[in-house]
Amino acid sequence: MTTAGIIGATGYAGAELVRLLSGHPKIDKLLLSSVSFEGGQIEDVYPNFLGRISEPLKKAEDVIAASDVVFAALPHGVGEQFAASCMEKKIHFIDFSADFRFYEDEDLYSAWYGKNYKFPDLHKKSVYGLTELNRNQIKELSSHGPVIVGNPGCYPTGASLGAFPALAGGVNCADRPIIVDAVTGTTGGGREPCRSFHYAECADSVSAYKVACHRHSPEIAQSFKLMAESAGSGAPDVIFTPHLAPVNRGILSTIYIPLDKKWRITRENSSMPPSKEIEEKTGQLRSVYEEFYRDEPFVRVLPAGVFAATNRVRHSNYCDISVSMDLNGSTLIVISAIDNMVKGAAGQAVQNMNILSGFDEKAGLEAIPALF
Amino acid sequence: MTTAGIIGATGYAGAELVRLLSGHPKIDKLLLSSVSFEGGQIEDVYPNFLGRISEPLKKAEDVIAASDVVFAALPHGVGEQFAASCMEKKIHFIDFSADFRFYEDEDLYSAWYGKNYKFPDLHKKSVYGLTELNRNQIKELSSHGPVIVGNPGCYPTGASLGAFPALAGGVNCADRPIIVDAVTGTTGGGREPCRSFHYAECADSVSAYKVACHRHSPEIAQSFKLMAESAGSGAPDVIFTPHLAPVNRGILSTIYIPLDKKWRITRENSSMPPSKEIEEKTGQLRSVYEEFYRDEPFVRVLPAGVFAATNRVRHSNYCDISVSMDLNGSTLIVISAIDNMVKGAAGQAVQNMNILSGFDEKAGLEAIPALF
Amino acid sequence: MTTAGIIGATGYAGAELVRLLSGHPKIDKLLLSSVSFEGGQIEDVYPNFLGRISEPLKKAEDVIAASDVVFAALPHGVGEQFAASCMEKKIHFIDFSADFRFYEDEDLYSAWYGKNYKFPDLHKKSVYGLTELNRNQIKELSSHGPVIVGNPGCYPTGASLGAFPALAGGVNCADRPIIVDAVTGTTGGGREPCRSFHYAECADSVSAYKVACHRHSPEIAQSFKLMAESAGSGAPDVIFTPHLAPVNRGILSTIYIPLDKKWRITRENSSMPPSKEIEEKTGQLRSVYEEFYRDEPFVRVLPAGVFAATNRVRHSNYCDISVSMDLNGSTLIVISAIDNMVKGAAGQAVQNMNILSGFDEKAGLEAIPALF
Amino acid sequence: MTTAGIIGATGYAGAELVRLLSGHPKIDKLLLSSVSFEGGQIEDVYPNFLGRISEPLKKAEDVIAASDVVFAALPHGVGEQFAASCMEKKIHFIDFSADFRFYEDEDLYSAWYGKNYKFPDLHKKSVYGLTELNRNQIKELSSHGPVIVGNPGCYPTGASLGAFPALAGGVNCADRPIIVDAVTGTTGGGREPCRSFHYAECADSVSAYKVACHRHSPEIAQSFKLMAESAGSGAPDVIFTPHLAPVNRGILSTIYIPLDKKWRITRENSSMPPSKEIEEKTGQLRSVYEEFYRDEPFVRVLPAGVFAATNRVRHSNYCDISVSMDLNGSTLIVISAIDNMVKGAAGQAVQNMNILSGFDEKAGLEAIPALF
Repeated sequence: MTTAGIIGATGYAGAELVRLLSGHPKIDKLLLSSVSFEGGQIEDVYPNFLGRISEPLKKAEDVIAASDVVFAALPHGVGEQFAASCMEKKIHFIDFSADFRFYEDEDLYSAWYGKNYKFPDLHKKSVYGLTELNRNQIKELSSHGPVIVGNPGCYPTGASLGAFPALAGGVNCADRPIIVDAVTGTTGGGREPCRSFHYAECADSVSAYKVACHRHSPEIAQSFKLMAESAGSGAPDVIFTPHLAPVNRGILSTIYIPLDKKWRITRENSSMPPSKEIEEKTGQLRSVYEEFYRDEPFVRVLPAGVFAATNRVRHSNYCDISVSMDLNGSTLIVISAIDNMVKGAAGQAVQNMNILSGFDEKAGLEAIPALF
Repeated sequence: MTTAGIIGATGYAGAELVRLLSGHPKIDKLLLSSVSFEGGQIEDVYPNFLGRISEPLKKAEDVIAASDVVFAALPHGVGEQFAASCMEKKIHFIDFSADFRFYEDEDLYSAWYGKNYKFPDLHKKSVYGLTELNRNQIKELSSHGPVIVGNPGCYPTGASLGAFPALAGGVNCADRPIIVDAVTGTTGGGREPCRSFHYAECADSVSAYKVACHRHSPEIAQSFKLMAESAGSGAPDVIFTPHLAPVNRGILSTIYIPLDKKWRITRENSSMPPSKEIEEKTGQLRSVYEEFYRDEPFVRVLPAGVFAATNRVRHSNYCDISVSMDLNGSTLIVISAIDNMVKGAAGQAVQNMNILSGFDEKAGLEAIPALF
Repeated sequence: MTTAGIIGATGYAGAELVRLLSGHPKIDKLLLSSVSFEGGQIEDVYPNFLGRISEPLKKAEDVIAASDVVFAALPHGVGEQFAASCMEKKIHFIDFSADFRFYEDEDLYSAWYGKNYKFPDLHKKSVYGLTELNRNQIKELSSHGPVIVGNPGCYPTGASLGAFPALAGGVNCADRPIIVDAVTGTTGGGREPCRSFHYAECADSVSAYKVACHRHSPEIAQSFKLMAESAGSGAPDVIFTPHLAPVNRGILSTIYIPLDKKWRITRENSSMPPSKEIEEKTGQLRSVYEEFYRDEPFVRVLPAGVFAATNRVRHSNYCDISVSMDLNGSTLIVISAIDNMVKGAAGQAVQNMNILSGFDEKAGLEAIPALF
Repeated sequence: MTTAGIIGATGYAGAELVRLLSGHPKIDKLLLSSVSFEGGQIEDVYPNFLGRISEPLKKAEDVIAASDVVFAALPHGVGEQFAASCMEKKIHFIDFSADFRFYEDEDLYSAWYGKNYKFPDLHKKSVYGLTELNRNQIKELSSHGPVIVGNPGCYPTGASLGAFPALAGGVNCADRPIIVDAVTGTTGGGREPCRSFHYAECADSVSAYKVACHRHSPEIAQSFKLMAESAGSGAPDVIFTPHLAPVNRGILSTIYIPLDKKWRITRENSSMPPSKEIEEKTGQLRSVYEEFYRDEPFVRVLPAGVFAATNRVRHSNYCDISVSMDLNGSTLIVISAIDNMVKGAAGQAVQNMNILSGFDEKAGLEAIPALF
């Protein structure tokens, strides 16, 4: 059995991880750390855990010392030292921050996050933990020693899962940008009270924010590039726009992928309702997606007529994907839905741990989503 | 003073119109009609009106007979006869359905709405009531006799107001499609209970629906075309995707407009944060928008750093617009916010009535939006 | 015409007052003050006001110096000095804080608010501004000089309007406590971000808070006492429990009033459905309410079968009241609904200003509630 | 291993049961029945189950024939025949409707539900399935043969768990009514679209409904009576008022229990903040609750200062209870929170099945609530 340590256990992603690991069949002990609440108990911070999870909140160092695997759900720029400690102790380190998502591209990281790498060498050993992209690499690395996983951002996860089959299959036209228009729920903003997530300011409202300047933009571009290159295609440009909707959890990403000419249709009048030809081509595109995800345990390609919705994946590790084609026959419209706290954060981290540790990849992640 | 008649007064758009006209300084009498509740009183159906609006619900014919101007908030395909009666009686008719939005293009209307024109001649006298597009034409027509206004759909209003300055100014590249990615609130689905708008099915969730097959697609395309042609440009292709968020009111439209080469910027590395050049170009594009809407009473171009949000226009006739430019310098990202029930339906109808009747265009529409 | 000054204009209640007074026919000028945003403009803080309300945020002293009437929407315990300045300048002062709600009972105020009166003499000149209780007194005082109004708390307003007719009519049994079980929306918590009103912590949840220790308890008790004594009855005990629901605005108060023996019914089996006798008695009790509120412009006693709901008074100054009787015939169940920001704060303040200034009491408060 | 049959699997309570039983360690096969969707698949009706629960929807008779235990989540008045079939087949039958909640009191049932018993004899063999009240009886009955469980209503569950310790301990004064003021979420209204649960009609609003005429009133009274009598006390009168808040799940019940004179405190001035004496007495009352629930796996008595909230029990079988005492020392204020779909319906049904079948009572119900 395994002891899992969580550093930053009282933030939203940390608490979600606590909840998921508490039901994990291979984890028999959790050790928790929190700077803000050090010395307290997790159930004082989260009374929803009362009677179930009763762990003291310790120092990070003490958690690392007694753990078999460590997760860090910390702000960006403060966790490298813990990664270093874990590497020394020869245990895996799964990081929720952006610190290990950009490999050796420190310039990109610095430009967006305003920090520098403190342990540059560590980044050579790290892997970007988008499971469906890097599963083999994660597994392979773990056979050689302890691994640092840069667990992906929530938006990049939803966007990537929606675009990967098209990128891998050469479906897209690399000359034109892919547009990712995404809507997130409020937990994405974290636990710290602020105006943007004050109930009366965001309830009953939909808004855009950080348009064309969100820090997940370069991560999405990098993820698309990795997949495109693995398929021998060129990296597409990406346009990313985040929005906020009054929901607790979930990211819905609508992804506009300009079609390569072999997939395009020319219609005489694109103002007319969908034609048979469009329906057929859409069916073929959906098959590309179904084929790509055939063996993936957590991606569901939806049947024709069903469009992705966040409430159907809530509290689960699923990514639901619907595939459509625009009326003018030029553009694939993929819509993906994930729970930003699960597949977009803590769930994917557990999935990565399962791979690293040789557990069943689905262990601890078998919750069936409730509709309501 | 003027008596206004409302046919279909008990649907959501009808009831909103009742509310707005009750506070209109030039309307001293409302006459209401409802098929579903004929013989009842409006305050039985809407107890929020108790003590304020106490009108019996009559037959449509009786309402028309005693009105100086008539609004119809009916399902598609049933209102032409009332338009005919009004023309005969020589009073203006403002129609909320799609029946008079496509001028003489009956084929397009039939293909999407499954109905034919019953009074084809009427459509020659009608005008598409997107005020900011057709204000002069509406005014001009009213000087010759009674007018039929095809009041725009909610999505086409938000999309058009967001795209018009770019289309009029030749900012867009007509070779590539404009993408309209929009999110609506639940009142857009009307008052009739159904699964999609059942609280537990849509609360705490964001979803897409009718992807690439929504009936507002051809209307948006037509509206864009009218504006582009008025500016001597070609009509762009349009891709439109509607979404649903758990809010009562509001449409947020994110509009991706590929830039004409004179506006484009080439960046070495589009994964890097926004450059000075991008900020400057964005400022120039914002100026194009400000200039275009300088004299419009209900369109507000937001200052740099403020992005459109539906709660800031709620219960008002405003359209708020934010202007951004993508990181790769190729695309204008315009975000518009309207209240679908006001600017997207009843408010715009009142605005059109004001123009037709020679009233102050702002009369009855001066509500200041509350944030919450 | 009148210049109104608002001190504390950028809190939620202050901003709501700005909005209401901007549409007030007798107010031609607003002067605004804010400590947090001094030197800025109101539309920077509330972009929903863009293009409509463009006032600089000044020092409180400067606002008072140039105003004809002053409102203060400040935290408790900091506004007495401004009241003093207004009395000196001989202009009315309407205070949203609790400072002037307890007349000369400084002990009660101190015990709950932890502050002392700085200008004890001022409190003798003040009046509790629950309009339906003290209208005559407010009017009378204003005929002698400047008046300080202690504008009521939101909960006390909803509770009082629900209980007054029973208290005035001797309907209640003074030996047993009246229970006020109320649910509020999140704007009641103000604009300052905090955990309790962080979206993800309160959305999709109903909770109780400050049970049996909320500061509105003594104010409700005092208000009930004033009304009971004016009717020659004894003051009842009051039990008050506040709850929070995920809505922006509104207070729904369910008030359990034990009936005096002349109103009680004895049923053989109170587990059986309502009897004719209960329905008749309920009708008589409803008549008591209708009679009491016959001439009140902002209280609506709902017809049988319609129960109070906050969305039917939202954004309006109305208080809706439904009257029921319990199955066991012993208890009157009154349910009142107000908008906590309007009738529960800024609207009632405007109503009081209208009375003080000899304006039509309804001026500026004629908004008709929208259902959605 | 066990095959469980669910009749009425496509309603909300049925679907929640499907979800819970799918994760139950002792259930290896589910058989589903639905009149509305017979012949279809459950994942067509609930796409959230895609890839996880893929069962055809059959005839009720076929389900019963092949099951080891049967649940019925049907409308009131249609399930007795299935109970009869199960008794014949000698398998347990757990009924979600009100049909088996009133034992032999057919008059009470008829008066409220407008139906008569079709198989009166069956009701003698049934037991009211409020686990914490009747655990021993349920277990005892199951040792003699097949049992019919009348699974409690959602409101009665929350109300009973909040009042039981007081009733059992003789804490309450039986001369005065206990008031249950409860707020429910929208799933309580079921899956069938209707005006009351149409998003735009209930979002952003709190309302009362069926005041003093809700069908759960007699069930609450009966449950209180059973507990009081088991403790040798008299049955109290009950006043019950249901409310609706815009949440998906959850019932928050605020229960006002007049204290027996041995618990009461007399305060000189009950408008003053809570005294030491009140705090001490409250602590003693909380101890009564803690003692009563010491061995209950699903009831959590909250520590001082933490008040019940529905989001802390969401998706779980927990009932959280906070204990307070009113300022005037006369009344115990208990607040209980449950998830109406779990402890208030499907979860409690599973708990009852576990007892009937000799499984661990917590099996299948170990989900830890997430806060958001």
